[in-house]
Amino acid sequence: MKKMSILMVVAVAAVGIGSVVTFAEAGNDYESDQIFAGQLPAGYRDWKLVSVAHEEGKLNDIRAILGNDVAIKAYRDGKLPFPDGSIIARIAWTYVPSEANDKAFGQQQSFVAGAPTNVQFMVKDSKKYVSTGGWGYTQFDDGKPAHVVVQNCFSCHVPAKANDYLFTHYSP
Amino acid sequence: MKKMSILMVVAVAAVGIGSVVTFAEAGNDYESDQIFAGQLPAGYRDWKLVSVAHEEGKLNDIRAILGNDVAIKAYRDGKLPFPDGSIIARIAWTYVPSEANDKAFGQQQSFVAGAPTNVQFMVKDSKKYVSTGGWGYTQFDDGKPAHVVVQNCFSCHVPAKANDYLFTHYSP
Repeated sequence: MKKMSILMVVAVAAVGIGSVVTFAEAGNDYESDQIFAGQLPAGYRDWKLVSVAHEEGKLNDIRAILGNDVAIKAYRDGKLPFPDGSIIARIAWTYVPSEANDKAFGQQQSFVAGAPTNVQFMVKDSKKYVSTGGWGYTQFDDGKPAHVVVQNCFSCHVPAKANDYLFTHYSP
Repeated sequence: MKKMSILMVVAVAAVGIGSVVTFAEAGNDYESDQIFAGQLPAGYRDWKLVSVAHEEGKLNDIRAILGNDVAIKAYRDGKLPFPDGSIIARIAWTYVPSEANDKAFGQQQSFVAGAPTNVQFMVKDSKKYVSTGGWGYTQFDDGKPAHVVVQNCFSCHVPAKANDYLFTHYSP
């Protein structure tokens, strides 16, 4: 009887581990399917931070680059090229001065994130996106897919070819 | 026999759920204990993103504000004051132009995160930190606790009292 309980526990634990792995793998496919079906992938806003940046010029935004678990692992391991299933999200917001922060600092110096501008994704699938370096590109405006010429995204990323077409480096 | 297997599964599942809750609660205490014992709390770099900012002037940094699960929930729920157990991490890096990005854009416009500068934490414990608005403050330089006058952190945050002493708003 006691032996059986232990066996049961092991069996349940094994089933548990099995489903976690399957779920995670299915999760990446699901996320990428969602993206190319014109939906923001569930949970992307919870992904881990890769780094941050500010773009002047026409963009005039402040941005965060997030990665799903596959991408974050690749970034942290420092291995190129990124494996299939990697997804990188670039969220951007308008770049606005913060009156409240400036008041606390006693001078104009603080710029924060204003309204969201758009969200871009890079999805690694070396078979599906052969013609664009193994990455699929897409953009969402106000949560809806934008009409963006994918080849334009790619040609802009070509100079970063030696870094698997990624401009953003991981910030510890 | 079959009935027993189901009972076993339920029992194991119940134990599982029980330990997850306990672990999460203990996790927050553990993180806060680690911080005030002079250690960077394990896993803080994996916390979810609250927002980003750029500080000019002497700081001249670009920063990300992350929150543990308790803090992120409070941010998303929009409820003030933040509950005990909330921890907010502010990671900063030097603010540096990116030659590689500028080349791709065809003009100088891109600023990215350089070397890490310091990491600051705000830990909510309304009983322990009564004299500083319910928040404990600390800073780490190069992963080691910095000698920062906590009262100075607090007095700087007083103008944000109406927002529970938080300057950073959540960016969707």
